[in-house]
Amino acid sequence: MVLEKRSVTVVGLGLMGGSFGMALKANRACREVIGVARRPETVTVAQELGAVDRATTELGIVAEADVVVLATPVRSIVELVPSVGGLVRPGCLVMDLGSTKAAIGRAMDALPKHVQAIGGHPMCGKETSGLAAAESALYRGKVFVLTPLDRTHRKALALAHELVDAIGARPVVLTPERHDRLVAATSHLSYLMACGLVQAAEALAQGDQMLWELAASGFRDTSRLAGSDVTMMMDTLLTNREAILEALGICTAELDRLAEMVREADEYRLRRTLGGARERRRSVFP
Amino acid sequence: MVLEKRSVTVVGLGLMGGSFGMALKANRACREVIGVARRPETVTVAQELGAVDRATTELGIVAEADVVVLATPVRSIVELVPSVGGLVRPGCLVMDLGSTKAAIGRAMDALPKHVQAIGGHPMCGKETSGLAAAESALYRGKVFVLTPLDRTHRKALALAHELVDAIGARPVVLTPERHDRLVAATSHLSYLMACGLVQAAEALAQGDQMLWELAASGFRDTSRLAGSDVTMMMDTLLTNREAILEALGICTAELDRLAEMVREADEYRLRRTLGGARERRRSVFP
Repeated sequence: MVLEKRSVTVVGLGLMGGSFGMALKANRACREVIGVARRPETVTVAQELGAVDRATTELGIVAEADVVVLATPVRSIVELVPSVGGLVRPGCLVMDLGSTKAAIGRAMDALPKHVQAIGGHPMCGKETSGLAAAESALYRGKVFVLTPLDRTHRKALALAHELVDAIGARPVVLTPERHDRLVAATSHLSYLMACGLVQAAEALAQGDQMLWELAASGFRDTSRLAGSDVTMMMDTLLTNREAILEALGICTAELDRLAEMVREADEYRLRRTLGGARERRRSVFP
Repeated sequence: MVLEKRSVTVVGLGLMGGSFGMALKANRACREVIGVARRPETVTVAQELGAVDRATTELGIVAEADVVVLATPVRSIVELVPSVGGLVRPGCLVMDLGSTKAAIGRAMDALPKHVQAIGGHPMCGKETSGLAAAESALYRGKVFVLTPLDRTHRKALALAHELVDAIGARPVVLTPERHDRLVAATSHLSYLMACGLVQAAEALAQGDQMLWELAASGFRDTSRLAGSDVTMMMDTLLTNREAILEALGICTAELDRLAEMVREADEYRLRRTLGGARERRRSVFP
């Protein structure tokens, strides 16, 4: 239990960073939570909401930190890593909450030897982004992937575990590559399918606004992720292109197969395929 | 207000039929609600739950009805229509709750002249099927499509409106063909994408069970419809093949376009497309 004596700085006070600060503070998990935001208004709001003990727009504040948590979109994290590495004290742990891990892992590998580093990705979120949507319970009971690097000391991994426990999440340790391949097939593919569905419905409507009147809870849920923050998702997609292209290819092939069964009115194959998908879905989400 | 003096028979006591009976009874909207189910156990449970005033396994009971509501999967409705038509009293209104309307409309067109008929499709449901999931509030505030035929008398349309009002839904009048084209682009496409997503994730996992551990709320919602009742969906798909094939074709083309943008890291087009989908989604579900 070393976390309680530590000062944690969260860089990026949106939904994920704001909720992280709130969860640490709600559980009195560390000595203090300092926030860094790009915009002065966010600094003010974060303090008002109690997401942090204090906040600033100056990245230099990380020099005071024992732990730095980078909570911005992935490509911004990749840019922040070397800057933060040049500012922190020896032994400081740099962690992140980015949606892909391999690109960030490569940036972390180039950090000075006296800096500790580990990747992190909490498997949760909301389609509403921004600090206003933050809540201390966001991480509670959710899987939090940790991606240690070869350079990650076991004490740094233990501290990361403590951080995950402190916000109520469930740690799972993976390599960055395995993480990226698996989330391509779950979250990234889900997001692109939601966007594809909305685009297709728009094209098929041919201006008939009644289509949106008929869009019931099924369409609402299937398309929910299309409302995600675009900048965050752009960074996610563009730092995991290979795995995403493989996932999209497999998925359109599955849709083509379903189309063939519908075209041929192949009841036997159709029932077996749809029944298989139903069983699998129900085994994952009973 | 003629409904309150009428006897309504609901054929098929699953989620939709059971909820329909419950809603009529909760609002004391008609003289009595009689249920018809295939299995004796369903008859017992429907009476215990108060979904109907009385129930039977005998279809012949429709001879007593002023209104018959067919609440089974689409192809079963298509088979039931002529049987029911041969049993009901002159002036009886035959309505249905089926997910596609053109095939049912053709069956209704062949009914004897003394029978009134109209198609109906409530835009709601649950991924849990069966009477146990039924609830009187299922239809409240939801769009309920009515598809009158050329033969539908204006008094029959008025009575159908009363039924829709009585269960708390919002009536929308469409032709069967327009209905089928629009729901192909919303519900049927959503369902097939959910199934395709689950199948693709299974294929991409290559046996790595960790994939399902990482499946968070995004995957859960995008795949939700894959848990739908397979028999109901088979009937839906196989009675709307042309529109569904068009929708699937447009959708896989959209996914191919997204793949191309990711492959080429075309930030401008990708941001514009994802941003467009986000705006559209947020305008439909604010």
